[in-house]
Amino acid sequence: MNDTSLTPAPVTPPALLAAIDLGSNSFHMVVAQLVDGETKLQDVMSEKVQLAAGLDADKVLSEEAQQRGLECLARFAQRVADLPRRSIRIVGTNALREAVNSREFLERAEGILRKPLEIIPGREEARLIYLGVCQTRPPEDGLRLVIDIGGGSTELVLGEKFQPRALESLEMGCVSFTQRYFPDGRISKASFQKATYAALRELMSIQKGYRRIGWSNCVGSSGTIKAIRNACISLGLTEEHITARALDQLRQRILSYDHVDDITEVKAERRAVLPAGLAILSAAFDSLGIRVMACSEGALREGLLFEMAGRLQLEDIRERSINMLKRRYHVDRPQAERVERCALQALAQLRDSWGLDDPQHAQMLRWAAHTHEIGRAISHAQYHKHSAYLLQNSDIAGFTNLDRQQLALLARSHRRKFPKDDFKQLPDSRQQACRRLAVLLRLACLLNRNRSRIRLPHLQLQVDGKQLQLNFPDGWLEQHPLTQADLEQEAEYLKALGLTLQVN
Amino acid sequence: MNDTSLTPAPVTPPALLAAIDLGSNSFHMVVAQLVDGETKLQDVMSEKVQLAAGLDADKVLSEEAQQRGLECLARFAQRVADLPRRSIRIVGTNALREAVNSREFLERAEGILRKPLEIIPGREEARLIYLGVCQTRPPEDGLRLVIDIGGGSTELVLGEKFQPRALESLEMGCVSFTQRYFPDGRISKASFQKATYAALRELMSIQKGYRRIGWSNCVGSSGTIKAIRNACISLGLTEEHITARALDQLRQRILSYDHVDDITEVKAERRAVLPAGLAILSAAFDSLGIRVMACSEGALREGLLFEMAGRLQLEDIRERSINMLKRRYHVDRPQAERVERCALQALAQLRDSWGLDDPQHAQMLRWAAHTHEIGRAISHAQYHKHSAYLLQNSDIAGFTNLDRQQLALLARSHRRKFPKDDFKQLPDSRQQACRRLAVLLRLACLLNRNRSRIRLPHLQLQVDGKQLQLNFPDGWLEQHPLTQADLEQEAEYLKALGLTLQVN
Repeated sequence: MNDTSLTPAPVTPPALLAAIDLGSNSFHMVVAQLVDGETKLQDVMSEKVQLAAGLDADKVLSEEAQQRGLECLARFAQRVADLPRRSIRIVGTNALREAVNSREFLERAEGILRKPLEIIPGREEARLIYLGVCQTRPPEDGLRLVIDIGGGSTELVLGEKFQPRALESLEMGCVSFTQRYFPDGRISKASFQKATYAALRELMSIQKGYRRIGWSNCVGSSGTIKAIRNACISLGLTEEHITARALDQLRQRILSYDHVDDITEVKAERRAVLPAGLAILSAAFDSLGIRVMACSEGALREGLLFEMAGRLQLEDIRERSINMLKRRYHVDRPQAERVERCALQALAQLRDSWGLDDPQHAQMLRWAAHTHEIGRAISHAQYHKHSAYLLQNSDIAGFTNLDRQQLALLARSHRRKFPKDDFKQLPDSRQQACRRLAVLLRLACLLNRNRSRIRLPHLQLQVDGKQLQLNFPDGWLEQHPLTQADLEQEAEYLKALGLTLQVN
Repeated sequence: MNDTSLTPAPVTPPALLAAIDLGSNSFHMVVAQLVDGETKLQDVMSEKVQLAAGLDADKVLSEEAQQRGLECLARFAQRVADLPRRSIRIVGTNALREAVNSREFLERAEGILRKPLEIIPGREEARLIYLGVCQTRPPEDGLRLVIDIGGGSTELVLGEKFQPRALESLEMGCVSFTQRYFPDGRISKASFQKATYAALRELMSIQKGYRRIGWSNCVGSSGTIKAIRNACISLGLTEEHITARALDQLRQRILSYDHVDDITEVKAERRAVLPAGLAILSAAFDSLGIRVMACSEGALREGLLFEMAGRLQLEDIRERSINMLKRRYHVDRPQAERVERCALQALAQLRDSWGLDDPQHAQMLRWAAHTHEIGRAISHAQYHKHSAYLLQNSDIAGFTNLDRQQLALLARSHRRKFPKDDFKQLPDSRQQACRRLAVLLRLACLLNRNRSRIRLPHLQLQVDGKQLQLNFPDGWLEQHPLTQADLEQEAEYLKALGLTLQVN
């Protein structure tokens, strides 16, 4: 900031890591910084090289496709030129596994990158994908099925916690199937049927084995699956996850179009490969009997980064994320714990009458108690809005978009006027519970405004229809005029919800 | 976050400070935390007690007004009950200085607060206000005139850096003058004239002395002055500061109304006292020959807090603020310095052709170079928008709203599409320069995307009308294909500004 800035300061560079993924559809590069054991993105590049489209019938990778790939790598190379070899991992997947002349490409690529490049087997790809998914999903009991639809192959993994139990990579992908079944962009029932049958045939090799082992939850990764999930949500076919029914409805809709250009439900660059991706995913749902599939943000690249960072963590990634937010924004921890304690006490008393008996409700309330004040790091004025902004926009590993949205709403509504209408962004089925959790959080914050270590008296809370009754021990309220004034104000605010707050 | 949260953790409480100001119009309380030597607001309360309105002709403070004050203090007291005496300072000002029975009120108030309360003399109030203003304004050369219009008195200070040279407190305030000249809320030219004359008479006692010493800049504080500033800006009478002309236009407008309820230019609770405040400020402008008055966010309470925190700093408060942001959001400092160096090089070459010769332009560009990446702390995706959000909403001491807005725009526009229309929020006179600074910042960021310690070649930049020409040494660009690709993309982006980027 002053004259000394013109001479370079002595630098202790933070550990940098990079992962490059030469996929069959796109090449991707991520550069990440290792801060306090967390990987933090520094730069992201993606180019739609479509290597798989350059494979001819004899599996020769065309000179044209190689050129597209090498030009992209020259740009990546400049970005990672300074990184030592041990900080970078570069992997090629299906299209390079398949190409008979992949060695030629490999040598030319290494000449440009000046770093070693590995073509990884399908099962290794599957293992890394599973790792990337595990790191970015909350832990779940029982087995997990992970499916990733790439440009040239589809990986299917069954595992428990961090241990894969079955790893498979099938040779079907959204680029190769597009070339085979939708080469001119025309959509027809016949070609969609053919693509689906081809996928079902591939899946037959694992169908029995996977069904025998079984799983209790299913997660999809890859751009194709995320695009399908987003299309289902924006069409109102589902609230959060891909369900068998939503997938079926989307399929019918897409089949009503004549050409991929008509598919306005996904981004322009995804349209061409969507029918093929949809056929593969539909086949997987049918073949394996999947009913619901959640989505993961992490996959191959995250697996590569995590393995390099050596940070395999067995704890709940969501607790880690919340702790990270608390550290970063200097949350007043004793206060967060007081609010948590008080909010959970209130929840225990209204659990039955308000139907807040899902363990997720208590969890959401706890997380909100620990994060609702993070916006204070920005400014005291309107800090509830800043907290909401941070929760809505931060990378919070392990949280789905819907989790983040609910958490942000709880922070947004924890003080001042009750922003009733904001809750309408949530799926209908979540609105009422979330508004009720907000009321509990508000009361807990109000009662702890003093930030005092002195314990509050035991809270007695009851609800009768639209009447909320809060009882204090005799005389306590008279000795606490600030709380009394705040509760009078709160009674006004809660009228917006049609609630009458009675204090005794 | 888990079971252990139910037993209180061993707490090392951060130093807490509180200041309570028993003003003639409102009572205010601020509770602040001392973090790394910075005071950070934790709670703010204000109640419009209107003590001055409770003084009768014999200067007896009515029992009713005392009750209003004591009830408010009971609420404040609960909030600061845990604070040790040395962490809190409670001061009464004009209304309590005037009241013949202030001792009675003082004893009752101390009974409630259980902390000592001081009634401070007008000159001490003036000194503390000056201190609060200095801490929140950028340093300026020469003498500074500070004016604060309270409910019962108006403080006027002349000083240089942190040294007051003349301190005065005049017995005129927006509440007492409202009672005297606008008791029923009716506005007339005659009563406004009377109020103005009364203020001019008060000012006569200092007019000569203050004019003789002189000053080079003038700053106003207090709610009255801020309300007048905001009204002038929203009516388009000025861009940032109160000018003599804008004040005159506002006065004419207010005089066209019959009743204070018609004054929709300010918030409802300010309306009743606005004519009196306007008369006092107009008189000060006339009497002292003020042409322009900036506004300060800090005043008495900030002076009290700063003095308690013992953190009188002589350096430029703005540099401190920028450094605080860099620390809080973990800015990559070597990178910020590279971008700064490169952007200032570019500025030096286009300074004349683009008319960016005001030293403020270089300063703004430096600050932007150091803060444009703070949004990365939130998320890599769309981080330029997060940086802008943080700059727009953070408490950044020493920066005016307009400074913050410009800084936020520079961060917002430093990458991706050029958000041309966003610049229209700025006053007309600032738009072009700010857009041009944004172009320089973009180029500096693009060229330093590698975050490499290797120095860039010397940049050669020229502008000819709408053509921007960037020259590299022979062959350099061919060896840097990422930069080449980024510059091609940038040429596309800059078309939005009608600029043609030519690279050689």
